[in-house]
Amino acid sequence: MLISPEELNSYDRFYRANLINSLSGFKSASLIGTKNKEGISNLAIFSNIVHLGADPALIGFVNRPLEAAPHTLANIESTGFYTINHIHIDWVDKAHQTSAKYPEGVSEFNACGFTEEYVEGFTAPFVKESVIKYGMKLKEIIPIKHNNTFFVIGEVVIISVPENSIAADGFIEADKANSICSLGIDGYYSTELIARLPYAKAK
Amino acid sequence: MLISPEELNSYDRFYRANLINSLSGFKSASLIGTKNKEGISNLAIFSNIVHLGADPALIGFVNRPLEAAPHTLANIESTGFYTINHIHIDWVDKAHQTSAKYPEGVSEFNACGFTEEYVEGFTAPFVKESVIKYGMKLKEIIPIKHNNTFFVIGEVVIISVPENSIAADGFIEADKANSICSLGIDGYYSTELIARLPYAKAK
Repeated sequence: MLISPEELNSYDRFYRANLINSLSGFKSASLIGTKNKEGISNLAIFSNIVHLGADPALIGFVNRPLEAAPHTLANIESTGFYTINHIHIDWVDKAHQTSAKYPEGVSEFNACGFTEEYVEGFTAPFVKESVIKYGMKLKEIIPIKHNNTFFVIGEVVIISVPENSIAADGFIEADKANSICSLGIDGYYSTELIARLPYAKAK
Repeated sequence: MLISPEELNSYDRFYRANLINSLSGFKSASLIGTKNKEGISNLAIFSNIVHLGADPALIGFVNRPLEAAPHTLANIESTGFYTINHIHIDWVDKAHQTSAKYPEGVSEFNACGFTEEYVEGFTAPFVKESVIKYGMKLKEIIPIKHNNTFFVIGEVVIISVPENSIAADGFIEADKANSICSLGIDGYYSTELIARLPYAKAK
């Protein structure tokens, strides 16, 4: 079926949100860990994360408008550092639970049953339960004027990944480490390798 | 294992590219269809696509530097319209092949075995073979100064999706339509639903 702009506008808010959120396809939902200046940690699930480049190693993510999601962005702005932690298939429900609104001063690490983990010389908290995770240094926060979201760009400064999850050519086999992906607002998926394909050349 | 910035810098170019490209997790690889002012179509695979918001319905994607990927961006800039087409598990190899460098004037639709499809009132070409696809109107191209990539923001103006792929609440079951996801530069994956979880509330 074809859905026109008029039909799209006629849908109720929740139907439309589910439709548009899932339209762009599967996403690398992960937990972002931060700390504020007072030392209170924060953990929140983010699903719109993109690779920007390998050298420098840049990764971007979309932060919703401030009224919906203020803490992660404020902590990144004030400290300059954050962690991104893959979600494991065994605790998808706990990861999803970080999207709940907790009272000021409550850390989602405690509230949702995760363990803070620290790496020497890096101030932001990692998720101990995550198998694949990386520490980021803020490069730039770009406000998106069309809907008050933010595109947050950071540089990868430290990586934690099991040696046996890295193939001989550097490829991280996230499926074998049981990292999940997401779809829409609330769908979580495991993955199965179809193929790794050789560099494409014009025939 | 922990990988420090020094180690990361010591890796050869290809190893580093594989590692960093796969670090951010699973991605919604899709084919972007465009046409230039002379009417020559273009089709290229893009994997870094994000949901920005449902109302207005905004989706963004990352375009590599112009010297690596000039045509899609130039066509979007000059015409204002493009299509994003999910990749089906049956023709992942053909979709990957669009990443090859074809001579000027050759359309990847022909070269890679895809069929152009048009919707009344919308000028950019859809991929007939795609099950889930959507037409986009350019809103803004944001240059990323750190590595000369671009963050391209568009508004969803038309959606084509089989009625039986939409759940009662609007959620598009992309797994049942056999849409794939990708990892790193060259890995393609099918998905299997773990769960759709209810809206999270603080306990």
